[in-house]
Amino acid sequence: MSSLPKHNPYFQIGGKDIWSLVNETAASRESLTGKKTVNLGQGFFSYSPPPFAIQAAKEALDVPAFNQYAPPRGRPELIGSLIEAYSSYYPEKLTPSQIMVSTGANEGMLSMFLAFLTPGDEVVVFEPFFDQYISNIEIPGGKVVYVPLHPPQCFDQETVNSSDWKINFTELENSINERTKMIVLNTPHNPIGKVFSRDELQRIGDICVRNNIIILADEVYENLYYKEHIKMATLSPEISRLTVTVGSAGKSFAATGWRIGWLIGHKDLISVACLAHTRICFASPSPLQIACASALRTAKSVGYFEETRKQYTYKYKILTDVFDKLGLPYTIAEGGYFLLVNFKKLKFPDSVEFPEEIQNKPRDFKLCYWLIQEFGVVSIPPTEFFIEEHKMVVKDCLRFAVCKDDQMLREAARCLERLKDYIQY
Amino acid sequence: MSSLPKHNPYFQIGGKDIWSLVNETAASRESLTGKKTVNLGQGFFSYSPPPFAIQAAKEALDVPAFNQYAPPRGRPELIGSLIEAYSSYYPEKLTPSQIMVSTGANEGMLSMFLAFLTPGDEVVVFEPFFDQYISNIEIPGGKVVYVPLHPPQCFDQETVNSSDWKINFTELENSINERTKMIVLNTPHNPIGKVFSRDELQRIGDICVRNNIIILADEVYENLYYKEHIKMATLSPEISRLTVTVGSAGKSFAATGWRIGWLIGHKDLISVACLAHTRICFASPSPLQIACASALRTAKSVGYFEETRKQYTYKYKILTDVFDKLGLPYTIAEGGYFLLVNFKKLKFPDSVEFPEEIQNKPRDFKLCYWLIQEFGVVSIPPTEFFIEEHKMVVKDCLRFAVCKDDQMLREAARCLERLKDYIQY
Repeated sequence: MSSLPKHNPYFQIGGKDIWSLVNETAASRESLTGKKTVNLGQGFFSYSPPPFAIQAAKEALDVPAFNQYAPPRGRPELIGSLIEAYSSYYPEKLTPSQIMVSTGANEGMLSMFLAFLTPGDEVVVFEPFFDQYISNIEIPGGKVVYVPLHPPQCFDQETVNSSDWKINFTELENSINERTKMIVLNTPHNPIGKVFSRDELQRIGDICVRNNIIILADEVYENLYYKEHIKMATLSPEISRLTVTVGSAGKSFAATGWRIGWLIGHKDLISVACLAHTRICFASPSPLQIACASALRTAKSVGYFEETRKQYTYKYKILTDVFDKLGLPYTIAEGGYFLLVNFKKLKFPDSVEFPEEIQNKPRDFKLCYWLIQEFGVVSIPPTEFFIEEHKMVVKDCLRFAVCKDDQMLREAARCLERLKDYIQY
Repeated sequence: MSSLPKHNPYFQIGGKDIWSLVNETAASRESLTGKKTVNLGQGFFSYSPPPFAIQAAKEALDVPAFNQYAPPRGRPELIGSLIEAYSSYYPEKLTPSQIMVSTGANEGMLSMFLAFLTPGDEVVVFEPFFDQYISNIEIPGGKVVYVPLHPPQCFDQETVNSSDWKINFTELENSINERTKMIVLNTPHNPIGKVFSRDELQRIGDICVRNNIIILADEVYENLYYKEHIKMATLSPEISRLTVTVGSAGKSFAATGWRIGWLIGHKDLISVACLAHTRICFASPSPLQIACASALRTAKSVGYFEETRKQYTYKYKILTDVFDKLGLPYTIAEGGYFLLVNFKKLKFPDSVEFPEEIQNKPRDFKLCYWLIQEFGVVSIPPTEFFIEEHKMVVKDCLRFAVCKDDQMLREAARCLERLKDYIQY
C-alpha cells in the first residue's frame, strides 16, 4: 500500500510537547510509587468555578434556544454584560459592534492574526511568551519578531520584583519595520507575573501609534493583579483605537474548560476578526456564554474578583514562604497566577539519572524531572517560553501555577521543604 | 489620524452574508407587522437536546475537573463513548489514537485542512456544498475543485428522489490531478438530502484509493436517514485507511450550540489533525464533552436515534403534504433535515417590489424575500451553495429546515397553503 498522503510540514509529529512530557513523567511516577503528585504545572484550576456561575450554566441548559448556535459574534446576553463590565474603561459606552465572543481567548487571538496577517507580515512578541502565540501567528504566514524582557542581573541570587524585568526600548524600536502589523502585549504576564506600568504601556503605545501597529493586548489575567493593573486601551484615544483587548472567562471564573473568551476594540478591527472567527468555528459554546453573561454581573455585585485577589495573595504566600526559607530566589508576581523560581543554588545528587529524552534539554527540564521524581511536585520548565538563543536566561528556573486549592499548595510546600538538603549556600 | 492597518483581503467586509440578510428581513417584517415569522431557515433546532443529555451536562458542571481544560484530543470519557459507538463499523475495536474531539464538526474539518493542505493543494468538493467548506479549504491556501451533483432534468416539474441527483464519474475523474490532496463527501447531504449509495461510495472510494486522496467524510447527519445509510469508512480496508469521518453532537443531539464534534480515522491522519486543532482552539468545551459521552451511551440504550428518525419522517410529511397539495415539486430527502422545493411554477404578483440589495440576486433570493414578507415563512436561497456558473440550477428553489417542533412546522404549512393563488398550473 502506498504511504498516506503527506501532511503540512508545519505540523511536526513526534517530538513530545512539554505538557505531555511533564504529565507522563508525573503519571509514571504515580503508577510506580503509588504516591500522588501535586500538579502545579499547567495553569488549570484545581477547584470549581464559583457556584453562581455553575448555577447560571445549569439554568441556561434548560432554555431550548441557549443550546443552539449562538450568533457568531456572540450571544447578545454576553455582549450586553461585557458592555456593562468594560464600558467604564472607555470614554463612551461600548457598542455591540466593538465586541466579539471567542471560543477561548486563544481562538480570539487566532481570529485577529488570520484577519490581519498576510504572509510576510511581522508581529512583535515579548519574550518569554505564551507558546500558542507563535503558531497562531505563523499559521497565516506571519513572522514573529522577538523582543526580550530582560531580568535584573541578580535574579539568580536574590528575589526580584517582576517589574524589574525590563524592555529595552531601543530593541523594541529596532524590531519594527514597514512589515510590522501587530504587537502582542501580555499584562499581567505569563510566566513572569509582570504587570506593565503606565509608563511602559505609554511608551509601547506611542511606538505603535507612530507606526500604525495593532496592539493585541492579552489581558486574560486582568482580574488577578496585586498592584495597580492598567488596561492598555485606557491610555489615550490614539492607543485605544489600535488596541484589541483579549479577555477570558476561563481565567476570570476558574473555568478553563468552558472555552469562552472575548475581544474588545475598534469596530472596524473587530468586524474583520469576526469574519475569521466565523470561519474557524462558526460560534462559541452557547449555554456557557449565557452562564458567563450572568457570572460577570454577579461577580461585580458580590465583589468576587476582589475576594479572589485576596485569596491569591495568600496562595502565593504559601509557596513563597517555603522558597524564602530555602533561600531560593524568585520573581515576585504582581499579577496572574504563576511563580518563577530560580534553582541555580540547587545541586543534583550524584546518583540522579535522567531519561534519554531530556538528556540534551536545558537544565530546567532536569530540574522539572527531578522535582517530580524526588518530591512529587509538578512544575513547568520555562525555557519553553524562550527562543533557542535565549533559553539560557531561565535554564535554572521553574514555573509553578498557584491556581490550586490551598491544601494542595500546602502539600506542595511541605514536599518542597526537603529541597534544603540539596542547596548550596 | 492615519487609517487603520489593512486586513487580510481574504476577509471581505460589507456584502451581507446570507444568514444576516434573511434574518434581518424576518426581523424587519416582525417589527413592522407585529406578526411572528416561522423560521425554517438556518439548521438549528427549535427544541432542546434530550433530557438525558441536559441532565448529564448539569452533572458534569458539578465536577471541578470537568470545568477545566480537556486534553486537546478530547476527554477520555467521550473518546471511550465514541469507541463504543463506532467500533462496530471497523474490523477491529477503535483505539483512542484514531479519535479526536473537535469544537464542533466545522473546527474538526478546519483542523484536517490545516493539517494536510499546503498552498496550491486541491480539494474536490461536490456541489451544492456547505459554505464553510470553501473558506476552510482556502484559509490554508487550498484550491477548491467543484464537481456538480446533477439533478434530474424534470426536477422543476415533478418531485424527484434525492438519489436521482447524480455524480458524473468522468467529471469526477477529470477533476483529479497530482495536486489533489482531499475530497469532501457529505452524506447524508445538505441541502439535497441525498444519502450516497454503496455503489456511488465504492466508485468514489476506488478513485481516491487509486490516487491516494484523503476522504473527509462529513457524516454529521449520520443518525438522520430514511433509507439505508452506509458509512464511507466501512467499504474496504483501503478506503477506510484514507477516510476521516466527521461526526457532530450538535446534529445528533439537537445541541448545535454545544460545539462538540469529532474526527475518526487512521491514527497517522488524526495525530496531525490534532496538532492543528491544538493550535486553533487548544481543546473543546469540557463539561459538554462529558455530557456527550453520557448521551451517546444513553441514546443507544433507549433507542433515541431510531425514535428521532421516526419523528423526522413525520416532520417531513407535514411540509411535503402542503407542497404536494400545491403541486410544487421537491426533492425527497433520504437523510438530514432539509427539504429543497422548486418554485418555478410560482408567479410573483405584479405589485411585488424587491429591496435594492437583492435586485441583482438570483430568483431564489426574491422567492425567499417574498415568502418572508407575504407568508411569514423563512427559508434559505440555495444558490448560495453553488458557484456562480451553476447557480441557475437552483434559481427557482428554496431550502426549508425541518429540525423544528411539529407545531412550528404545522404553522408554516398553514401559512404556505396560501401560495396556491400564485401558482400557474
